[in-house]
Amino acid sequence: MAAIDIEVSEVGPRDGLQSITAIMPTAAKKAWISALATAGVPEIEVGSFVPARLLPQLADTAELVAYARAIDGLKVAALVPNLRGAEDAIAAGADKLTVPLSVSETHSLRNVRRNHTQMLAEVRRIAERLRDLPAAQRPKLEGGLSTAFGCTLEGPIAESQVVAMAEALMQAGCDEVGLSDTTGYANPVQVRRLTEKIWRALGRDSLTGIHLHNTRGQGLANALAAVEVGLTTVDASMGGIGGCPAAPGASGNIVTEDLVFLLEAMGLNTGIDFERLLAARRVLAGALPAVELYGFSAAAGLPKGFTPASARSAQPV
Amino acid sequence: MAAIDIEVSEVGPRDGLQSITAIMPTAAKKAWISALATAGVPEIEVGSFVPARLLPQLADTAELVAYARAIDGLKVAALVPNLRGAEDAIAAGADKLTVPLSVSETHSLRNVRRNHTQMLAEVRRIAERLRDLPAAQRPKLEGGLSTAFGCTLEGPIAESQVVAMAEALMQAGCDEVGLSDTTGYANPVQVRRLTEKIWRALGRDSLTGIHLHNTRGQGLANALAAVEVGLTTVDASMGGIGGCPAAPGASGNIVTEDLVFLLEAMGLNTGIDFERLLAARRVLAGALPAVELYGFSAAAGLPKGFTPASARSAQPV
Repeated sequence: MAAIDIEVSEVGPRDGLQSITAIMPTAAKKAWISALATAGVPEIEVGSFVPARLLPQLADTAELVAYARAIDGLKVAALVPNLRGAEDAIAAGADKLTVPLSVSETHSLRNVRRNHTQMLAEVRRIAERLRDLPAAQRPKLEGGLSTAFGCTLEGPIAESQVVAMAEALMQAGCDEVGLSDTTGYANPVQVRRLTEKIWRALGRDSLTGIHLHNTRGQGLANALAAVEVGLTTVDASMGGIGGCPAAPGASGNIVTEDLVFLLEAMGLNTGIDFERLLAARRVLAGALPAVELYGFSAAAGLPKGFTPASARSAQPV
Repeated sequence: MAAIDIEVSEVGPRDGLQSITAIMPTAAKKAWISALATAGVPEIEVGSFVPARLLPQLADTAELVAYARAIDGLKVAALVPNLRGAEDAIAAGADKLTVPLSVSETHSLRNVRRNHTQMLAEVRRIAERLRDLPAAQRPKLEGGLSTAFGCTLEGPIAESQVVAMAEALMQAGCDEVGLSDTTGYANPVQVRRLTEKIWRALGRDSLTGIHLHNTRGQGLANALAAVEVGLTTVDASMGGIGGCPAAPGASGNIVTEDLVFLLEAMGLNTGIDFERLLAARRVLAGALPAVELYGFSAAAGLPKGFTPASARSAQPV
């Protein structure tokens, strides 16, 4: 099998479901995760270790991590807001922990009621805890730079501030940072410029992934800029579900199905089978019949005569 | 006023309305065209000179051309399938005529019941007719390469065939050709490669524009590739209305509102005021209340603190 060029990380079970009032039954989530993995999705963020009273939709995250880690080859990611969440994620066996830090301090206070100093102290505690684990059991720790492209509360965010927060997260012990367009403000020029600024400050290994929203319809243009500048992991959510309850107007991750078609059509291997991905979409649609699913590729289907192999051919028609 | 970097050509009154069963009243079309021009849209394709029995929605094209040409600074485009349509367009006073030629001969026969030889002969007749006009009254003649990125009937279209048809159109007397993704099959790599192949064969002046559909959600990613490779005119339709009745599954041009936000956010001047563009969208929505309008920027609005001037600043925040 050809090596994967771009890793699509499915965040629907976390970012998608947290913004939907309806609670998806655990059995349905497992069926969806299983269908996603069967389609070849290499990484799934299955939930968030936050108190159930805050996000009852994600109360079964520990059970989902345990379920997903038994799926051969799947990387299991989870969001953790603090050390307590990290402990739970470690106990459940997650492969990757993402701690979000909002570059907009106003958004950080609104979202998790912590300022930057408090968040960085928490990241340091998590990193120290991880260092105690045997290497084979140690999950990767990512610092997610939320509102990196602008904030619905503060407006523009200085790029120097994003770079400073990236440095602070790495110094606090993260293995990597990720850029997150929480608010759907990003444009392709900004995606490239900010990525390169962080690379210049911290090296390319410090940043490989990006989390984009489609709030203004710019998601796939930004994804194109991201993969062409050299980022190799792109978050997306099936049906474009998701958003951020604390950032008014911010709704909808980029659509996994449309992203996979974009990448495969460009000749980039995602390891994902499009038809099986549509089967996973049907599982999701069946479990959440009242929720509107976004995206166009699912209805339109693949172009006549399209195969990923022909798209990857060095001799285009 | 700063020079325009990218010309957004609004094709909604032609490509949009031709695919909608409802007939928009002429007065409403005029109000919409006027609102688009007030927003700064530099070019509008106001209709198509086809027999009213085939497209009754566009039966008032001559009246609309006459109306639109009185708007200061606006370039008025119209689609013409044949010499008879071109005569009508010339009489009405259009600035630009587009003759579509489908690179897929199967699609051409289905769409206009003519093969390539017949279409090229028609283009030659139109070009000869235009040469008889005084230079000041001579509209520009564009050959539109429909199905250039693939065909829902034939499947993949050989790029050599697209280049050959581009050459044939230029030899037949077109001032320029345009690439058209009639079916929503295009990907960014293909957009760049095909543009460069035509440039190598015919020079850069022969191709400056592209017509993209959003059938698989890839429209803005393709638009990004197009403007970054150096194309300077991008077709779009307000609310993403439009499609091709003869190409099953092909629906929806790229959304003008989202395209304008993309370009302005990247620091490219379109000459279009976003808030006034939303006013034009309200005119359209009011005239076609039963038609679903696409796009995300209209609902989300501009990012907090966003101004085109700040986006164009050489000193990003």
